Amino acid sequence: MFDLKVYLEGKRRLIDSALDREMPRETERPARLHKAMRYSVFSGGKRLRPALCMAAAEALDAPESCALLPGLAVELLHSYTLIHDDLPCMDDDALRRGKPTVHVAFGEAVAILAGDALQALAFELPTRSPAPCANRVVRQVAELARAAGSCGVIGGQVEDLAATDGAPSPDTMDFIHLHKTADLFRAAVRMGAVAADCDEERLASLTRYAECLGLAFQMSDDILDENQKDTQNRQEASCLQVMDRAAAENKTRDLVNEAIASLECFEPERIAPLAGIARLTADRILPENL
Amino acid sequence: MFDLKVYLEGKRRLIDSALDREMPRETERPARLHKAMRYSVFSGGKRLRPALCMAAAEALDAPESCALLPGLAVELLHSYTLIHDDLPCMDDDALRRGKPTVHVAFGEAVAILAGDALQALAFELPTRSPAPCANRVVRQVAELARAAGSCGVIGGQVEDLAATDGAPSPDTMDFIHLHKTADLFRAAVRMGAVAADCDEERLASLTRYAECLGLAFQMSDDILDENQKDTQNRQEASCLQVMDRAAAENKTRDLVNEAIASLECFEPERIAPLAGIARLTADRILPENL
Repeated sequence: MFDLKVYLEGKRRLIDSALDREMPRETERPARLHKAMRYSVFSGGKRLRPALCMAAAEALDAPESCALLPGLAVELLHSYTLIHDDLPCMDDDALRRGKPTVHVAFGEAVAILAGDALQALAFELPTRSPAPCANRVVRQVAELARAAGSCGVIGGQVEDLAATDGAPSPDTMDFIHLHKTADLFRAAVRMGAVAADCDEERLASLTRYAECLGLAFQMSDDILDENQKDTQNRQEASCLQVMDRAAAENKTRDLVNEAIASLECFEPERIAPLAGIARLTADRILPENL
Repeated sequence: MFDLKVYLEGKRRLIDSALDREMPRETERPARLHKAMRYSVFSGGKRLRPALCMAAAEALDAPESCALLPGLAVELLHSYTLIHDDLPCMDDDALRRGKPTVHVAFGEAVAILAGDALQALAFELPTRSPAPCANRVVRQVAELARAAGSCGVIGGQVEDLAATDGAPSPDTMDFIHLHKTADLFRAAVRMGAVAADCDEERLASLTRYAECLGLAFQMSDDILDENQKDTQNRQEASCLQVMDRAAAENKTRDLVNEAIASLECFEPERIAPLAGIARLTADRILPENL
């Protein structure tokens, strides 16, 4: 019987120890920069994105180890975007997960530079693969770069910031959700699939899974955020600006179901982790979790 | 007879038109972000780094075209660091090359995000190589990532910011110059060499050339900056804080000579561009140019 909690806890430990191994030491010069990078990365993240990367490789019967470095790359990318999103000129958040944000703890200049260095390190990690299959590494770098770029995560953040005045159009809302969140889920899953030398048909199925999951994840975030709205400095674009709560809950569940249905070409026992993570996303908005 | 001015002008045109081709259009969503990225990249840069990348490939008898995409990658990386360096919490510069800096023209949030997106695009470009030799692309990405990261350009910038109070130690000064400037020159030359499938011995010679050139370039910058000191908001670390002007001029010339001497294993006509660029760096501090 597959236990998702045990699975994710095992992955989290593996990922944390690999991040510790691959990141520069705090004692290495410049120490303050390396402290800030580690402060951001080791602040209690769930490591969902690297877990997805490894679960995608496992769905294709490859060992989790082949997707570890690309998974870490996605996590570092995610960490850096959180540092920059929290800055005074963006969301101006003083706390993240109950701790002072990086710019509060280390100053704005070091926060910006720590984010910049984490992005560079994210692109370095796939190139560290032992006995690398260079073609796969190149594809992983290309996936990550597109997801991270001006038509990916950064594009989503720009449109989110621009949407502060009044409710965005449904079209803009889709753009923000797709790029600000789903693009990195998509990259995580596709980089894991590439590590496992996936064929085009199953890559398309996994991509659809990741897109639906990413959108569902962002919608469930919006629904959860609604309960703590007065803690936000800026009204971020939320799906609840363009639909009511019941509609948002239904759409989240529909997306989760579509994510799981996308995986029907795989053997059921192989995709238990991916399906479990999708169900977990729907469970976030169950009444008892809100 | 080799004419460096004609050579560099030809490269500049080639690089500018390739940058225009490889960068997202201003009309593409998010338009404001893409405008800011292009505003930064097309602001009259000399394109010295991509020219070095191509000149290194040519020194190895490879066509310039094989080093074009990696050269553009280095240029985008350089552009992004300028945007972030100019920010209010860093050097707080309102003008660059006589034009408003990106954060003045587009606001701080868009400036930070335009820099972030340029970094991602820098890592994407080498993966776009037609008929790629994947091994070379992986090595190029690794070179760029190390030069761009916390022990490269970003590390240098952090130490530079930290050195604002009082004169830095000679050791700190070396660290700043090596990482803030020389690392990207080194990456440019090495990426071009890798594109040309360089053997280890000549790679070592080219690396030494690039390190000497990068240090000489930063020292000549410090000497030139001394003449316009009151236009700076922040006293940046300068070699003139740890040695007098005559000593700095001598050291610059010594480094240029060492850069050229590093290339003695190459046929003279092949290295005319690299040697010419080194001499140009020494010429920057001739009395008539100061």
